Amino acid sequence: MSMKLPATLAATALTLGLVAAPLQADEAPVTMNIKVMTLDTASRLAWATLEACREAGVNVAVTVVDRGGNTQVVLRDTLAVDLTLEISRQKAYTAMSFNGPLSEMEDRFTKPFQVGKVDGVVFSAGGLPIHAAGRIIGGIGVSGAPSGETDEMCARKGLDEIRMDLEMVQP
Amino acid sequence: MSMKLPATLAATALTLGLVAAPLQADEAPVTMNIKVMTLDTASRLAWATLEACREAGVNVAVTVVDRGGNTQVVLRDTLAVDLTLEISRQKAYTAMSFNGPLSEMEDRFTKPFQVGKVDGVVFSAGGLPIHAAGRIIGGIGVSGAPSGETDEMCARKGLDEIRMDLEMVQP
Amino acid sequence: MSMKLPATLAATALTLGLVAAPLQADEAPVTMNIKVMTLDTASRLAWATLEACREAGVNVAVTVVDRGGNTQVVLRDTLAVDLTLEISRQKAYTAMSFNGPLSEMEDRFTKPFQVGKVDGVVFSAGGLPIHAAGRIIGGIGVSGAPSGETDEMCARKGLDEIRMDLEMVQP
Amino acid sequence: MSMKLPATLAATALTLGLVAAPLQADEAPVTMNIKVMTLDTASRLAWATLEACREAGVNVAVTVVDRGGNTQVVLRDTLAVDLTLEISRQKAYTAMSFNGPLSEMEDRFTKPFQVGKVDGVVFSAGGLPIHAAGRIIGGIGVSGAPSGETDEMCARKGLDEIRMDLEMVQP
Amino acid sequence: MSMKLPATLAATALTLGLVAAPLQADEAPVTMNIKVMTLDTASRLAWATLEACREAGVNVAVTVVDRGGNTQVVLRDTLAVDLTLEISRQKAYTAMSFNGPLSEMEDRFTKPFQVGKVDGVVFSAGGLPIHAAGRIIGGIGVSGAPSGETDEMCARKGLDEIRMDLEMVQP
Amino acid sequence: MSMKLPATLAATALTLGLVAAPLQADEAPVTMNIKVMTLDTASRLAWATLEACREAGVNVAVTVVDRGGNTQVVLRDTLAVDLTLEISRQKAYTAMSFNGPLSEMEDRFTKPFQVGKVDGVVFSAGGLPIHAAGRIIGGIGVSGAPSGETDEMCARKGLDEIRMDLEMVQP
Amino acid sequence: MSMKLPATLAATALTLGLVAAPLQADEAPVTMNIKVMTLDTASRLAWATLEACREAGVNVAVTVVDRGGNTQVVLRDTLAVDLTLEISRQKAYTAMSFNGPLSEMEDRFTKPFQVGKVDGVVFSAGGLPIHAAGRIIGGIGVSGAPSGETDEMCARKGLDEIRMDLEMVQP
Amino acid sequence: MSMKLPATLAATALTLGLVAAPLQADEAPVTMNIKVMTLDTASRLAWATLEACREAGVNVAVTVVDRGGNTQVVLRDTLAVDLTLEISRQKAYTAMSFNGPLSEMEDRFTKPFQVGKVDGVVFSAGGLPIHAAGRIIGGIGVSGAPSGETDEMCARKGLDEIRMDLEMVQP
Repeated sequence: MSMKLPATLAATALTLGLVAAPLQADEAPVTMNIKVMTLDTASRLAWATLEACREAGVNVAVTVVDRGGNTQVVLRDTLAVDLTLEISRQKAYTAMSFNGPLSEMEDRFTKPFQVGKVDGVVFSAGGLPIHAAGRIIGGIGVSGAPSGETDEMCARKGLDEIRMDLEMVQP
Repeated sequence: MSMKLPATLAATALTLGLVAAPLQADEAPVTMNIKVMTLDTASRLAWATLEACREAGVNVAVTVVDRGGNTQVVLRDTLAVDLTLEISRQKAYTAMSFNGPLSEMEDRFTKPFQVGKVDGVVFSAGGLPIHAAGRIIGGIGVSGAPSGETDEMCARKGLDEIRMDLEMVQP
Repeated sequence: MSMKLPATLAATALTLGLVAAPLQADEAPVTMNIKVMTLDTASRLAWATLEACREAGVNVAVTVVDRGGNTQVVLRDTLAVDLTLEISRQKAYTAMSFNGPLSEMEDRFTKPFQVGKVDGVVFSAGGLPIHAAGRIIGGIGVSGAPSGETDEMCARKGLDEIRMDLEMVQP
Repeated sequence: MSMKLPATLAATALTLGLVAAPLQADEAPVTMNIKVMTLDTASRLAWATLEACREAGVNVAVTVVDRGGNTQVVLRDTLAVDLTLEISRQKAYTAMSFNGPLSEMEDRFTKPFQVGKVDGVVFSAGGLPIHAAGRIIGGIGVSGAPSGETDEMCARKGLDEIRMDLEMVQP
Repeated sequence: MSMKLPATLAATALTLGLVAAPLQADEAPVTMNIKVMTLDTASRLAWATLEACREAGVNVAVTVVDRGGNTQVVLRDTLAVDLTLEISRQKAYTAMSFNGPLSEMEDRFTKPFQVGKVDGVVFSAGGLPIHAAGRIIGGIGVSGAPSGETDEMCARKGLDEIRMDLEMVQP
Repeated sequence: MSMKLPATLAATALTLGLVAAPLQADEAPVTMNIKVMTLDTASRLAWATLEACREAGVNVAVTVVDRGGNTQVVLRDTLAVDLTLEISRQKAYTAMSFNGPLSEMEDRFTKPFQVGKVDGVVFSAGGLPIHAAGRIIGGIGVSGAPSGETDEMCARKGLDEIRMDLEMVQP
Repeated sequence: MSMKLPATLAATALTLGLVAAPLQADEAPVTMNIKVMTLDTASRLAWATLEACREAGVNVAVTVVDRGGNTQVVLRDTLAVDLTLEISRQKAYTAMSFNGPLSEMEDRFTKPFQVGKVDGVVFSAGGLPIHAAGRIIGGIGVSGAPSGETDEMCARKGLDEIRMDLEMVQP
Repeated sequence: MSMKLPATLAATALTLGLVAAPLQADEAPVTMNIKVMTLDTASRLAWATLEACREAGVNVAVTVVDRGGNTQVVLRDTLAVDLTLEISRQKAYTAMSFNGPLSEMEDRFTKPFQVGKVDGVVFSAGGLPIHAAGRIIGGIGVSGAPSGETDEMCARKGLDEIRMDLEMVQP
């Protein structure tokens, strides 16, 4: 049983600039770097999303989670009900974990007791992954609109607001 | 990132008389008013519902929740089983959160891991939203009858009992 | 068993302007009004609190809850750990529920299995109630500073930011 | 390993009239009878308690549980906070389970990890057991007053309201 | 709002001998009697069920709950896995709550978010209600056999063992 | 990083006869044997304990857990309240996990947030570890007597009932 | 009601060499032996599985549980998300409990509220049971690959690594 | 309300080399980098810790968590009980969250309902924070030794094993 990082992964890590410690010949890296949005970026994303929903005439809650699945920002609009908190959180967590828009994953699991049943995971439109420097760095979830598609449209507009900043992030 | 309430919502708020603080030109309201039934009204509703079920020969539990999703009244009839407590609470919470009779929402979500899977939400007939002054102010849930339709019929009779009072509530 | 609101409470309600429906001679009100901060106010409060902590050199999470105990805003600073989310929420909830600064309530319960043991309640400095028009309308909790007193100082500065607005709210 | 009820208990059961099936010489009873208040009695108790608190000028929640620990009635006054629901339920459950007034049991457990730490149990004044025909049949819990002693005083007044009825219950 | 038990239910109660206090003209009963199996009976039922499964060559867990949904007996055979504990409990609770054999209720709920989704409820064969004197007094659940039908067959044999005793219970 | 079992432990394992596979020179064992009471033994233990409590005039619940912490037997006497189920389980689990009588461990942890606070652990008299062939094989917990010392006395009498059998178990 | 192990099971136990105490004529065994992998074996299995996934270019979490359902080893690869922890645990637990590869059990339960709905159980490919000496001794679960089949392929390669050792375990 | 990172924090971030995107005059960074040990490093740490405990003659569980509080590695020694899993996880999480050795924090909170009561937090010796490049990157927790001091000594030896590697990590 070897503790070494296989060659393939070590190579990948180097290419992506993830590796924090200098790599020697046959040595796995000691640590890697994970990117996390600053709260300031996450808040801009959340507010732009919430305002896109306000413009669409709907009251929603918005949650942004980082790559560890931990909440960074929650905004619940004045008239959005309590349940939107839990649902927006689960959508953000699911979109980050499965790294894709939830609107495209509603049919990912169809048998009643597959992975989708695990607590905290929900497959309804309204969640998007967040990327920077070619990697997943978090997720955003929205709940409160009459349809999940509207929820997800708001999140997409929210991401537009910070897209240029995200694109300039160095690997 | 603007902190202001968008014009559209501010206008809506004014129209509905929700706004507590005087609005100035470009200023969002500081607080809004949420209506909540008094316990006395909620209790009348719960008892009228329970007695409608007794007349139909069924033992049920009834739960009334306010707009924040918090319980105001629970009544479990002498011979109704423990499980009716949890189910009536979830029905009340779901009818309030989705703002519609549950009997009309049983088919709202059909894929196995959509929003309906979230804990505390159930889509079986037997729950109704409560309105006053044109807004949602709570929900009522009933459990214990052999069919959810009977549960919901009781809730409807219960709401009839307080309908006139609710209709006279000023916005 | 009377369903009527006792005279004393009805009188109080009138004085405070809480009553939504016109009161007749011997009739309890049907509904009351509960004030809730708009999201915009809650967000200003949360950000002012978080920045007060940044100025003090500490990374914190801030949670604002309404009178129903439901979260309105969560902000977790970029380097604040996950645990600050849960603690700030419990502080906000406790300060609102017991209607006082937590720094003054650390000694409220001293026996090991009293009310303070209930889940979701915590008695450590760092939480404040929020008032408007003479009534409690929510709570704010802060976690992350080396001492709870610093957490609470940030919340106090945050409240200063919206104090004038809160004071102008009509009953 | 004997399945028989020991003589001592069988004798007690006979004396108390609990036994449903005729006892033969060396035979344990098949079933016993447990008394449960009707919902109507439980509701009278809860309302009398709540009104005693209103007269004392405090907004509380009241919970009544049966001997199985299952809720029969919950009443939360219009302005009582959400937390009073959980605390009144735990007080009712604890007073029933330990069969005594909580005000007399605050010092029952003093070491930090004794039985009092178990979830759902709380040792703060504000809960009373309910008896009929010489046996425990439920519990009542109150939360919301500034002191637990006031909570418990309300419960005591509530029990006064149904005392005569309880005293007439046959074993 | 009347606190009285409606005539229909009061009549039913009298017929079934459930009423503990003497009924006067227009008065609801104060308490009712709920039958509960003695532990000795419940244990005989559980062991007879477990041995029926042993004879069928399967290792199972058996749970018996009373009408309040509280466990009376649990037996897990030496080689039955941990999961059989939770499943047998849920089967016992569900069969008691819905008052029927689970093998006949697997199709009771078919939409994905109906009542069957509530925690603690499971609709797989292997659970039976327990009756005495014409009323439900508990439930039994079995888990561990390759098919739920075998689980339920064992429970049926277990009930046969105490059937005569149950039939002799007076109302 | 070596995967080998250190010499000291390997030696211990050999001495105790725990090792299932033949040990070669420098090879760790692949599997070990864990002893578990048969259900029949566990049930004898539970019943002897419960009857010792009946003789002492108290109604209790008894739980027996195996070395993995999983329940083998639960018996709740006819009049013991629901709470005794949870407490007896926690006592059994704690006595097994800490391998000692709980009556001797009530002072083991004294600071309020030490290990004793973890869910499922309780340090009140009424639990004993079960040993065979010089090793811990489970735990028994009792709840329901007015004092934990009486609970533990019953468990001790229960263990007396199976002591000879346990002593004859080969390592 | 006999406490004895029925002849059939006693015979089976003898054949399998599970019985720890000498069996006399009409006596059930007092204890049985359960095999458990040493941590060292479990760790070799987990690492071989994780490296098989690395070679396939996917980041996963791996969990190994013993026959009691308790975790022995968890490995989460550097870039695998948090959710893979919970899913790999549930897969390991389910494969052990139902004693089969999850890829063959995805259709085992098809109605929405059958046994598969119980918390902690998941029926998606990626879990395998672990056997030694003809009996189940644990389970392994993998999560993180785009498809469950890849997850399960890694687990299969992991088991290949320790297959010879497992095959040499004596009953 | 400004969205900008205050000057003080921006300066700190620059000094520590945390900032991923180039900072312009008055612009907050978009993302930051969080270091995470590779699984390979975390596993070396866990094994070195577990073997230090084996040498001390104790069976323990070891958990390593990253800065997000998510588990990276769990090792439970063959004879360590189930409870050590939960305790080692809580110790790792607490040491990381409070950034200090738990042996020095047992007296940090002394009133019964302070922050230490929050679920998942435990203040008993046996947990250490993990640092690299001057920042916290995770935590390690150990449970199973008769005293927490021994648990923590093992963790300290484990950290010694990877100290040189950690010290070479670049900021």
